[in-house]
Amino acid sequence: MSEQVVPVAIGPTQPAPTLLEKAITEGGGAVAELSEARALIWAGGPGEFPELLPDTLEWVQLPAAGVEDWFTAGIFGRHPNVQFTSAAGAFAASVAEHALMLLLAGVRYLPEHLRAGSWRQQDFFPHVGSLRGKTVTIIGAGGIGRALIPMLLPLGAHIIAVNRSGRPVTGPGIPDGIETIPADQVGKIWTRTDHVVVAAPATPATRHLIGAEELSRLKPSSWVINVARGTLIDTDALVAALASGAIGGAGLDVTEPEPLPDGHPLWVLPNAIVTPHDSNPPQLRLAAFADHVAANVARFVEGRRLLAPIDPRRGY
Amino acid sequence: MSEQVVPVAIGPTQPAPTLLEKAITEGGGAVAELSEARALIWAGGPGEFPELLPDTLEWVQLPAAGVEDWFTAGIFGRHPNVQFTSAAGAFAASVAEHALMLLLAGVRYLPEHLRAGSWRQQDFFPHVGSLRGKTVTIIGAGGIGRALIPMLLPLGAHIIAVNRSGRPVTGPGIPDGIETIPADQVGKIWTRTDHVVVAAPATPATRHLIGAEELSRLKPSSWVINVARGTLIDTDALVAALASGAIGGAGLDVTEPEPLPDGHPLWVLPNAIVTPHDSNPPQLRLAAFADHVAANVARFVEGRRLLAPIDPRRGY
Repeated sequence: MSEQVVPVAIGPTQPAPTLLEKAITEGGGAVAELSEARALIWAGGPGEFPELLPDTLEWVQLPAAGVEDWFTAGIFGRHPNVQFTSAAGAFAASVAEHALMLLLAGVRYLPEHLRAGSWRQQDFFPHVGSLRGKTVTIIGAGGIGRALIPMLLPLGAHIIAVNRSGRPVTGPGIPDGIETIPADQVGKIWTRTDHVVVAAPATPATRHLIGAEELSRLKPSSWVINVARGTLIDTDALVAALASGAIGGAGLDVTEPEPLPDGHPLWVLPNAIVTPHDSNPPQLRLAAFADHVAANVARFVEGRRLLAPIDPRRGY
Repeated sequence: MSEQVVPVAIGPTQPAPTLLEKAITEGGGAVAELSEARALIWAGGPGEFPELLPDTLEWVQLPAAGVEDWFTAGIFGRHPNVQFTSAAGAFAASVAEHALMLLLAGVRYLPEHLRAGSWRQQDFFPHVGSLRGKTVTIIGAGGIGRALIPMLLPLGAHIIAVNRSGRPVTGPGIPDGIETIPADQVGKIWTRTDHVVVAAPATPATRHLIGAEELSRLKPSSWVINVARGTLIDTDALVAALASGAIGGAGLDVTEPEPLPDGHPLWVLPNAIVTPHDSNPPQLRLAAFADHVAANVARFVEGRRLLAPIDPRRGY
């Protein structure tokens, strides 16, 4: 082994997932035993985390985006000389891709196409839309919202991002000057936008953010996509708007209640698409974590700043 | 009217489509009578085109991407001092968007979701895929293929473009270094790629480009998308591959035969998505033409090179 190769351990899974071993190699590291490692990729929870770490260890990569449990367990305080990183941002891309799929399928009238069983081109022509030149408002500019923006821009959509501060949203692949408005002015967007993607956290302030009044101000061609939490939309108001044609349709990966019970109107309305909160299924989570690991190992090997560093003093 | 404002006429439609009037204004021109115009936006065919054009006229924008009929009608020879432009490239984006929609809907298992009528999250988890890290081969690097590349890259897909020359594909929004292979080596891609998008012209050389052998070398998770012409795929071989699970699915905006007759197996196979050649319906064509007009009027006003110039000596 060349002295340049950085030894990286994997824990606690034995044998380690092949994807993680591959990610370490791709990043320029070499899979090693913990006792001689400079870095540890941890695929488990805080309960199984080693009490003692070797003096050689400089960095630990954790598998979760939110690390509240790790603070509660006191892990960071126990290893003050080790840099911990989370997987924040790693899992957003799959959810953003799902949101894009739901929006495109809606705008291009895919549900009716799948029910047709017959060519009827002239019937379909007037209903096939496009995102080109349309305004898409993304409520919430966290990981999912920021991942979605670069996916929508090449389609020629105009983006309005809604975040807390109203400061223009920034991030990888996001050009300067994305129109961004603060959450307390979200009321302005309903008559301006063509479509809405909900990607904001569930808080008391965002509960039923979209209700009867907001839906009534959207267009009959508007699609509402929710990949965040079901509680952000008033389900009864949404069902009424879908049934009356007040909006074009809804694409929902999350619902209230959840799971959505059998026989619920959202299962039968022709302009509702429901997926059972599966925009980020387990096998894609592992693949996304492996991508994150490969990127961070490369940064570690090259001595660059790691992605998603945890600062125990800030608490995240 | 300021002397800086460029007078642009519209023909032959009376009244002119509002979208085209708006496009001229957006581009920095002013809608004018033909007799005083420096440019003419023509929304009709060659048969109705004026015999005589005013001496003030410098540029004519035609509404079609292919202008063979205009050569046949001898229009360009009759007006040697006028620059003609076509709408080449203007209509590709909508078809590319449709291809992206079909591919995402397939990979994320949307058809089965729409049939479910019940939450069943655990059943769906293993079937929801992603384009992240997957290889998508685009056969044909004309307008549609080139428009699709920038839509796929932000999703984290690896692109293989197939064109005639094998020279790396270039175009707006396409970074350097896209892997590009010549059409005569297309046989290499079937075992390498995850998904295939067919966007090549129908010629004797491309007939049944995808048949039983090619399908047998793809993966059980592969989706085949066709937005070009039905004849590029052997329909019977495709039906067999879909029925046996040899590939993941097919998303088809074009079929052979077309229209696809009622009762055809492609209407009932659960992993086939058929849209009736409506990826570029009339209302989107007019909107796309208007965008092209706005861009070209802006270029004309600013004295820049026009998009899609027709060179009568080259014959296109």
